[in-house]
Amino acid sequence: MHLDTLTANSGEWLRGTGPDSDVVVSSRIRLARNLSQFPFPARAEEATKSEVYSLLAGTLGDLDASPTLHPFGLETLDELDAQLLVERQLISHELAEGEGPRGVAVSRDETVSVMMNEEDHLRIQVLASGFDVKGAWAKANGVDDAIEADLPYAFDEQFGFLTACPTNCGTGLRVSVMLHLPALVLTKEIQKVFQALQKIRLAVRGLYGEGSQAMGDFYQISNQVTLGLSEEELVEKVAEVVPNIISYERRVRKALVRQDRRSLHDQIARAHGVLRSAQTISSDETMGLLSSLRLGVNLGLIDELEPATVNEMFIHTQPAHLQKLKGEELSSPERNVARAGYLRDKLADAELDTDE
Amino acid sequence: MHLDTLTANSGEWLRGTGPDSDVVVSSRIRLARNLSQFPFPARAEEATKSEVYSLLAGTLGDLDASPTLHPFGLETLDELDAQLLVERQLISHELAEGEGPRGVAVSRDETVSVMMNEEDHLRIQVLASGFDVKGAWAKANGVDDAIEADLPYAFDEQFGFLTACPTNCGTGLRVSVMLHLPALVLTKEIQKVFQALQKIRLAVRGLYGEGSQAMGDFYQISNQVTLGLSEEELVEKVAEVVPNIISYERRVRKALVRQDRRSLHDQIARAHGVLRSAQTISSDETMGLLSSLRLGVNLGLIDELEPATVNEMFIHTQPAHLQKLKGEELSSPERNVARAGYLRDKLADAELDTDE
Repeated sequence: MHLDTLTANSGEWLRGTGPDSDVVVSSRIRLARNLSQFPFPARAEEATKSEVYSLLAGTLGDLDASPTLHPFGLETLDELDAQLLVERQLISHELAEGEGPRGVAVSRDETVSVMMNEEDHLRIQVLASGFDVKGAWAKANGVDDAIEADLPYAFDEQFGFLTACPTNCGTGLRVSVMLHLPALVLTKEIQKVFQALQKIRLAVRGLYGEGSQAMGDFYQISNQVTLGLSEEELVEKVAEVVPNIISYERRVRKALVRQDRRSLHDQIARAHGVLRSAQTISSDETMGLLSSLRLGVNLGLIDELEPATVNEMFIHTQPAHLQKLKGEELSSPERNVARAGYLRDKLADAELDTDE
Repeated sequence: MHLDTLTANSGEWLRGTGPDSDVVVSSRIRLARNLSQFPFPARAEEATKSEVYSLLAGTLGDLDASPTLHPFGLETLDELDAQLLVERQLISHELAEGEGPRGVAVSRDETVSVMMNEEDHLRIQVLASGFDVKGAWAKANGVDDAIEADLPYAFDEQFGFLTACPTNCGTGLRVSVMLHLPALVLTKEIQKVFQALQKIRLAVRGLYGEGSQAMGDFYQISNQVTLGLSEEELVEKVAEVVPNIISYERRVRKALVRQDRRSLHDQIARAHGVLRSAQTISSDETMGLLSSLRLGVNLGLIDELEPATVNEMFIHTQPAHLQKLKGEELSSPERNVARAGYLRDKLADAELDTDE
């Protein structure tokens, strides 16, 4: 598989067809694993890292599991392609900007990606469209078992799976759900959600994980504790809490429509108008306006757009995607112009499709 | 002629086809006149005002001059219709909100309107599209002569034509030009224009005359002095100064395009986008956005709109016009919704016409 095949379409998880996709963008399972006979990447010599990478890439490329994984070495990948993988949430910023032998193995549908020589030897990730942590967990568990059949993991009776950072040891499991919460943000009710989640030790982060800002009203909710509970219990914990947030967001959306449909519709229609017209637009402004558009589509206030189209626009307006689509490197002001052009074309096409 | 015929079209002067119409909306001549045998309206008894009104309406309705004038009594006109005449600049706020026998005689093409029993017995007004003060003056002079042939004016050898307010006596002439100066406003160069005009005793006012704010980057420039110069000299003075402002505005427009075409185009396109999309919009915001649109059309940055369409939108989004178009009285929030609907329809039609 060539990396360019990724650019043309949007990953399966982005189709926006999963359960509760009006509020939940995606569900994610991440497992941190290390090989027993090698030091953690941060403490390994270049030669050892190289040996580990070869071993992992060979194993993952030939794994007895579905879907098939395609390994990419990050060292031979240019910066733009690495950034593309970050924007598609297939690898972390850390892996993209790291050094030495490292890579990722990706399935064609982008639901499975396994990072090699990031913080840990292996970071298994499964993405699912909408709210489906259990489905994602089952898939990740399968990939995990298949790898373990070929390679011995670093495991301790007391601490469970050993990881480079102690906060991950035990299960090595991070269960996370990406939520779109524009109504809770608009009404500032989101603060209550944060407080409630903190009490039960669930973390809230922005779109691109740890330390990133919540752009476009997207929030990632995940477990903080990885130790002392079984994988199934951790998955269950998130699976139990998220439906409350979903129904909270839906309730507030309905209330907004009931109380002042006109002004909500106005805000959404204006966002649509600016996206259809701007000649230059920043990434931040785009995220904010697309968030309004996504809300409008989900509330039926904009009927000429498919949810999947809006989801795609979130990804395709990111810097690396824009440059891939344009086929050239672009400065920040050039990207703002390319972004505006992409949005105008995409939204004009959507209108045309509706007219037909 | 029924008043409703005015609502359907836009007055000749609004067609935007006159000379220098990229900068000059309209030229206006106003003559203040009083009858010699009657006290000024402010000092007249109701019966006298009534007598004057009948005399004037009769004379104007049967005047030996072209175009034919149609007299309307303000006392029998409902508030909305009176407001409509204000918005079309055919009568003043003062006449609309005044009391007692008073009215206006209007030509079908709206180039000539003569107010009766406003501050003076007669206020003859001629409007011309674009920059044409001399043409407007010739027309006003003709109407003035025709009236004077039937009715004796109050005239004094020393003070010239006598008027209720001493600032108008002498010629009773106000020459004014309505300019659209978005580039001078954007670059704040407009302050220099104000200072220069003040020095040569020309007044600058907003869209609806004295005391009104400059909305939509429209400025009315007129003579302050009415005494000590002949009518022709006063007309000449304005005719000489305005071309400098026109070329100043054009120079700054070109400079804006040259220096940062992208950002100017962006601002104009976004204005267009909001006007095409908003579900509710205030009059002030509309004026500001339409001003950007007008600039865009004149710079060729928006090619799907005719200048006349934009000019028409300025008038038709005013409160009385909206209510006339809707055929019912509307509260302020209802007008904001009706205004947004009118703008969306008008701009969608314009796009459709271009597509054909």
